Amino acid sequence: MSLSEFELIQHFFANSGAQRADVTLGVGDDCAILAMPTGKELVVSIDTLVESVHFFKDTDPERLGYKSLAVNLSDLAAMGARPAWATLALTLPSVDEDWLAAFCRGFSQLATAYGVQLIGGDTTKGPLNISIQVHGFVDIGTALRRDGAQLGDVIYVTGRLGDAGLALQNVGGMDTSAAAQSRLDRPIPRLAEGQALVGVANAAIDISDGLLSDLGHICQASGVGATLYMDNLPCSQAVHDHIKVNDDWSLPLSAGDDYELCVTIPPEKRAEAEQRAVNFECGLTQIGRIEAAPGIRCLRANGQQLQPPSSGYEHFSS
Amino acid sequence: MSLSEFELIQHFFANSGAQRADVTLGVGDDCAILAMPTGKELVVSIDTLVESVHFFKDTDPERLGYKSLAVNLSDLAAMGARPAWATLALTLPSVDEDWLAAFCRGFSQLATAYGVQLIGGDTTKGPLNISIQVHGFVDIGTALRRDGAQLGDVIYVTGRLGDAGLALQNVGGMDTSAAAQSRLDRPIPRLAEGQALVGVANAAIDISDGLLSDLGHICQASGVGATLYMDNLPCSQAVHDHIKVNDDWSLPLSAGDDYELCVTIPPEKRAEAEQRAVNFECGLTQIGRIEAAPGIRCLRANGQQLQPPSSGYEHFSS
Repeated sequence: MSLSEFELIQHFFANSGAQRADVTLGVGDDCAILAMPTGKELVVSIDTLVESVHFFKDTDPERLGYKSLAVNLSDLAAMGARPAWATLALTLPSVDEDWLAAFCRGFSQLATAYGVQLIGGDTTKGPLNISIQVHGFVDIGTALRRDGAQLGDVIYVTGRLGDAGLALQNVGGMDTSAAAQSRLDRPIPRLAEGQALVGVANAAIDISDGLLSDLGHICQASGVGATLYMDNLPCSQAVHDHIKVNDDWSLPLSAGDDYELCVTIPPEKRAEAEQRAVNFECGLTQIGRIEAAPGIRCLRANGQQLQPPSSGYEHFSS
Repeated sequence: MSLSEFELIQHFFANSGAQRADVTLGVGDDCAILAMPTGKELVVSIDTLVESVHFFKDTDPERLGYKSLAVNLSDLAAMGARPAWATLALTLPSVDEDWLAAFCRGFSQLATAYGVQLIGGDTTKGPLNISIQVHGFVDIGTALRRDGAQLGDVIYVTGRLGDAGLALQNVGGMDTSAAAQSRLDRPIPRLAEGQALVGVANAAIDISDGLLSDLGHICQASGVGATLYMDNLPCSQAVHDHIKVNDDWSLPLSAGDDYELCVTIPPEKRAEAEQRAVNFECGLTQIGRIEAAPGIRCLRANGQQLQPPSSGYEHFSS
């Protein structure tokens, strides 16, 4: 069977996900045409997933469709944005309709859940490569950024850290819980949490490469440093056990793939933030403090300072 | 040398091209933040270029940077849009700073020329893959679309057809003129022309896959057919010679890569359109007419009807 690029996009992806009133023209022309709300800024992010780098060969395409969109929506969450539209540039080695249908199912499930409409795309032949751009809105001037952290801010994270790394370590093994595996395969973009923290957080980032690396980006952009209270890090029992048995903190600190939010909140807004977080199913945990001294210090409750494991995942490190 | 993904993007691409007042936050955070004009709609398009499919291995990276953006801007031109922002998702087999610098040079040259700012991107490791999304604006309700062609519309194209195909046929040969080669390597997005045709054209598309294929998209979307007057097709002397010697019309009809605009204009607006086109350096040529009968007929001046060559390039055709 032969399907042109055009038919491919039309057939599998035409306006997947939510159907939005602000989409004047979706998939199928040279461009999509979109109505823009007043009083808002547009926030956009593009991310690529590559086979054998970001996911294993023969990864279940439905999971891949879900996760590809999830990691992009996580970037919108880190800005406190409300998601709206997505585009998909998909490079595939061959036309496999079952694969495409499954990928689209995973993508659309998440898109529908978060009110995102697929408005355009491109489908080309080549080694598997998935680029997704997401678009959302924030009230003008309210977006959470990396560069807003202030001395004395308290550092918080949503959810728990290290489960995705645990699942990744144990790929093919028998000792990964379904819960940890789900955290790796189906991360939950913290969109409601990010939106709820607008107005109280000074800075935010999503934890894709690991807490140390991503908090490091906040520190670098804001010209500050930080101390992390290691015994406060929110971890599952399985991750706690791993740390204890191996004396290895890399899962919560640098394994990455958690897609939780790390935010910094000024002391005078802590009460307000914690009040708002009462509604967070995933929780919001205080894990450290922003300081003047550059770098990130990892402090145990007993006063011991850990040598941090090597920094987060870097795609081109040698 | 080792460069993280983050540093890579920052170093080579940070806010390349024009510097725009509507970019609140460009490259470097989880998302870019953008101010939106009032009274406009946003138009967006994403396109991918893959090595060995869209360009040859070892293509000069400066040319590639230029062309990658040019083919995307051509999509904005086809909507009559004014370009604003671009994002770049770049997958590279390795970090080659010379390659990146040259790619960025080509990209930035064109971006600066058309007032486009690079606002975000992602750099990942893998087989070479270039996805670019462009963003532009149109006055609300004025975008040129594929689905607006009406019975009796006159079909026009900008510029000349077939030179890019000629250069592509002769890759490595000695008989390609510099002019034809330039049309292949450095297509000129017809942005001013597209904007000038807003209000007079009923439908528009850019010719990336070949006139027959792309006019076919207009016909399909609009529920019409067309006749092309073959002897009116605007071609260079080299392309005319090729047609005559080989009795082969594939260069102007289906070779693609021309990135000219094909528009349909109602008879009562022809005078106005041709008046506006006086300023088109590339020219605007009448080549056919929209009709009720489905399909596209290729008519010679002597009344003979050509059997059209196989349709335009389709990435997954077998």
